[in-house]
Amino acid sequence: MTAISRYPVPELKDLPDDLRERILAVQEKTGFVPNVFLALAHRPAEWRAFMAYHDALLVKSTGSLTKGEREMIIVATSGVNRCLYCVVAHGAILRVYEKKPLVADQVAINHRKAEITPRQRAMLDFALKVCERSHEIDESDSVALRAHGFDDDDIWDIAAITAFFGLSNRLANMTAMRPNDEFYLMGRVPKAKTT
Amino acid sequence: MTAISRYPVPELKDLPDDLRERILAVQEKTGFVPNVFLALAHRPAEWRAFMAYHDALLVKSTGSLTKGEREMIIVATSGVNRCLYCVVAHGAILRVYEKKPLVADQVAINHRKAEITPRQRAMLDFALKVCERSHEIDESDSVALRAHGFDDDDIWDIAAITAFFGLSNRLANMTAMRPNDEFYLMGRVPKAKTT
Amino acid sequence: MTAISRYPVPELKDLPDDLRERILAVQEKTGFVPNVFLALAHRPAEWRAFMAYHDALLVKSTGSLTKGEREMIIVATSGVNRCLYCVVAHGAILRVYEKKPLVADQVAINHRKAEITPRQRAMLDFALKVCERSHEIDESDSVALRAHGFDDDDIWDIAAITAFFGLSNRLANMTAMRPNDEFYLMGRVPKAKTT
Amino acid sequence: MTAISRYPVPELKDLPDDLRERILAVQEKTGFVPNVFLALAHRPAEWRAFMAYHDALLVKSTGSLTKGEREMIIVATSGVNRCLYCVVAHGAILRVYEKKPLVADQVAINHRKAEITPRQRAMLDFALKVCERSHEIDESDSVALRAHGFDDDDIWDIAAITAFFGLSNRLANMTAMRPNDEFYLMGRVPKAKTT
Amino acid sequence: MTAISRYPVPELKDLPDDLRERILAVQEKTGFVPNVFLALAHRPAEWRAFMAYHDALLVKSTGSLTKGEREMIIVATSGVNRCLYCVVAHGAILRVYEKKPLVADQVAINHRKAEITPRQRAMLDFALKVCERSHEIDESDSVALRAHGFDDDDIWDIAAITAFFGLSNRLANMTAMRPNDEFYLMGRVPKAKTT
Amino acid sequence: MTAISRYPVPELKDLPDDLRERILAVQEKTGFVPNVFLALAHRPAEWRAFMAYHDALLVKSTGSLTKGEREMIIVATSGVNRCLYCVVAHGAILRVYEKKPLVADQVAINHRKAEITPRQRAMLDFALKVCERSHEIDESDSVALRAHGFDDDDIWDIAAITAFFGLSNRLANMTAMRPNDEFYLMGRVPKAKTT
Repeated sequence: MTAISRYPVPELKDLPDDLRERILAVQEKTGFVPNVFLALAHRPAEWRAFMAYHDALLVKSTGSLTKGEREMIIVATSGVNRCLYCVVAHGAILRVYEKKPLVADQVAINHRKAEITPRQRAMLDFALKVCERSHEIDESDSVALRAHGFDDDDIWDIAAITAFFGLSNRLANMTAMRPNDEFYLMGRVPKAKTT
Repeated sequence: MTAISRYPVPELKDLPDDLRERILAVQEKTGFVPNVFLALAHRPAEWRAFMAYHDALLVKSTGSLTKGEREMIIVATSGVNRCLYCVVAHGAILRVYEKKPLVADQVAINHRKAEITPRQRAMLDFALKVCERSHEIDESDSVALRAHGFDDDDIWDIAAITAFFGLSNRLANMTAMRPNDEFYLMGRVPKAKTT
Repeated sequence: MTAISRYPVPELKDLPDDLRERILAVQEKTGFVPNVFLALAHRPAEWRAFMAYHDALLVKSTGSLTKGEREMIIVATSGVNRCLYCVVAHGAILRVYEKKPLVADQVAINHRKAEITPRQRAMLDFALKVCERSHEIDESDSVALRAHGFDDDDIWDIAAITAFFGLSNRLANMTAMRPNDEFYLMGRVPKAKTT
Repeated sequence: MTAISRYPVPELKDLPDDLRERILAVQEKTGFVPNVFLALAHRPAEWRAFMAYHDALLVKSTGSLTKGEREMIIVATSGVNRCLYCVVAHGAILRVYEKKPLVADQVAINHRKAEITPRQRAMLDFALKVCERSHEIDESDSVALRAHGFDDDDIWDIAAITAFFGLSNRLANMTAMRPNDEFYLMGRVPKAKTT
Repeated sequence: MTAISRYPVPELKDLPDDLRERILAVQEKTGFVPNVFLALAHRPAEWRAFMAYHDALLVKSTGSLTKGEREMIIVATSGVNRCLYCVVAHGAILRVYEKKPLVADQVAINHRKAEITPRQRAMLDFALKVCERSHEIDESDSVALRAHGFDDDDIWDIAAITAFFGLSNRLANMTAMRPNDEFYLMGRVPKAKTT
Repeated sequence: MTAISRYPVPELKDLPDDLRERILAVQEKTGFVPNVFLALAHRPAEWRAFMAYHDALLVKSTGSLTKGEREMIIVATSGVNRCLYCVVAHGAILRVYEKKPLVADQVAINHRKAEITPRQRAMLDFALKVCERSHEIDESDSVALRAHGFDDDDIWDIAAITAFFGLSNRLANMTAMRPNDEFYLMGRVPKAKTT
């Protein structure tokens, strides 16, 4: 099996306590340790900042974006950035959150053909603009998004999630980070069947 | 549920006999009718040419490309062309042929990170060149491919499969062709579980 | 003189009867055998499917696209795909059909500057979108085309012709298919002079 | 007939003497007045600088580039810039200089498939780099060109001709400059036939 | 004067203590508060993660990249991303670190023409690849970088700094973050003159 | 110090009289000889045409574009073409003409974020279109520009300045033309300080 990273991957026991504790907590909740936790642990200081940023954007109760919509942004932009880890791992989370087994593949391949709402389509149109040509953002983007009910802080959320996972995509592409096998199937079949 | 095509989809009973017979045969073998057979049947003459071309490239015993490798070409180039139908449908076939539940997602997202052989990597590098900038093809491509054991007819196969599915991708994108739900899961779990 | 293909070109006498018959018929009508008939005959099964597809799209009486307009689509998209064979051969046919000696060069180089109707300009704008970024096709394209009197089946025709010649362009680029010398001049001067 | 420019085109009698004299001289030599002389005469000062630059690059006896090769550069780069006027007008001159009725179309559509020498292929590869991404020029380009016998002043010539016609292409595209009908056929048939 | 952000900018007195303390410390050291500290403070949790990541990559003593080289990476990639804030602010820091008043403009406009070492040129070539097409990264990149003495952790540093400032560029472009006027001149003239 | 050009740079005393006289006049006015005058003097005939064209576009009293606006066009398009010489040299002139020390960096990096008028924004939008995709220019561009008060001759000016400096950018990139050190600081600080 391919290594999970081109870089040395530390063993759990050799990690600083805070990293190990969070990793064990994730393992308990998810049933396995997503490889990003181990691959990035090669650099504990960066790991901590990465997780703090992740939590600030995804673990919060403000704004109108649902948890599923945030994952849609991640999957769509990671598809454009051709990041295997993020498309597969966040595709799994997206399926679980939305309880729709098909939506992740649709959004990753071509969000224009995905079975999502017009509001979500506009959200992803903007996310792709942030991803590919953020220097062209101007007031016209806000106008288009407000027409779908997004406010300025929602716009910040869309852009910041896109920007943060653009960072994540580049790290995953550089380290050749390998998605856990478990992610590929997660959310595609009723829970009973996969266990 | 979204329609399978923006165009009228004929009913089986209204189709010319040869179309209906083939469709029924596919249904018997696969367990359902892949939507491409119905969506393209809006134009029977084109349908016949399409299927004849398909068979000439994929149902044959000459050349060194395995059936799985031909599907890899389809999945990788359909990913670049962002064709939902072909990535999902041929991703399923690729999983089934290769008996590898992960390979289709890997090839669709970024073949450079897929768990394939160096020969397959070279095959897909060339397929993407045919897909994206065929006008730059020259002798250097043949040299690179021959170094991996491909002969001139294999090179024709790689290019022709890419070219034919470039046609297919554009038709699917134009008609907004919807992949059958069954494809998304096919080849991901042991057979017993999906039935 | 450069070979007409990088691949072996069969002699007429060695071809299956159906290929030879059609080729002789074309020769009788046109005065020479267009090289595509010989170059693709390296693979008879693909040849048959190719010609069947070609005829299904170009030899038919339905739809509002004129024969000249179908050739415009071929020439404009082959120009974008930088396919020498198709620009030269179909440029000749376009000149003959339209009886306009300048239109093929105009459409091949930049259709926006060609002396064509606004309806034809819109038709070619859409053809180029199908050619270059078919994944972005959506309802707005149909709206723009319907404003010029195109119906849904015309839209299918524009897209399918573009898609089929995208296949043809890639095959011609891969085989380094050489246009017959005769095509370069055809339709540029009154008939009497070229014989 | 379409106007030769979106801008007012002065009449010969209203032009400054030096412009009119050169235009009459060209007319006497060529048999007609190429539209660029009239379209750019809307701005006499720019006209003079344009013609002086043109002559400095094309009417000179130094360097190893033949007159035909200089026209090849113009045709290939004008093709990339999609400039109707320059492809058609300089395509004609290229055919006349090289006495090859096919070469202009080949170079304009895809120089990689043109029947030219490897040295000319390298020359055009570099011209396209100057045209499309001059910021990436570095010492490796000179090495590749010197291998084909080009010296530093030839390299300047290739780059300067490309750069000057990049200016010309943009002016022609902006003014919608119309090529004279005569150019389309020039050099395609033996002289006797066209008169 | 243009606002420093499209979003509300909190006043120092309204900020959480940890943000205010760091901001006051920067102000004391630099003589002014760089706008990024205020603009991002609209979201304190994200601010903290951003600064922690920044420090993990830029305030450290491991690896062979000098502080000036890290700023070169930021300036070159921010130039490609067309981020006004980062080019101007980090251009200033680059000039100060390198004590070279010209280097920032050179690196921002075209690093191939900058007066830097071949090792730095290779470093920036890789940074731009991470910035623009990280999915194409493979072993060949490591080989090229190791030839200049970079080890695997240097490669991680180059990639991670590029990735992090890609995030920063997108945030700055989205918020229309305004660089402080002071940055434009900093490091261009001997210190005495600017005070 | 890096040479000012990859090509031999003639000494003033060896130049034709007209070149030397103009160069001395510029030196007297500016305080130094901008390197473009020396680097291009390698080819006196081209030098003369270049300067004549330059003067025809920039030293004139017709049209509504201010001298500063013409320099904005040069800086913005040279930024897109990644031409170090022109961004630095004309950035200096732009600062001097506009008496705004920040505007040149803003326009070079991203004119959409520059502190310029909406009319100037529209002017630069069009200039970038001429620079990057002049073949797409059509009547819609004139409509947009006229809405900001530009007339047809202003449009010619914007396009011609863009086109001419596209030529200049390519020459500078090919010769690796080095901007004079003086330009980097010019216009950034009150005059007294720089002398």
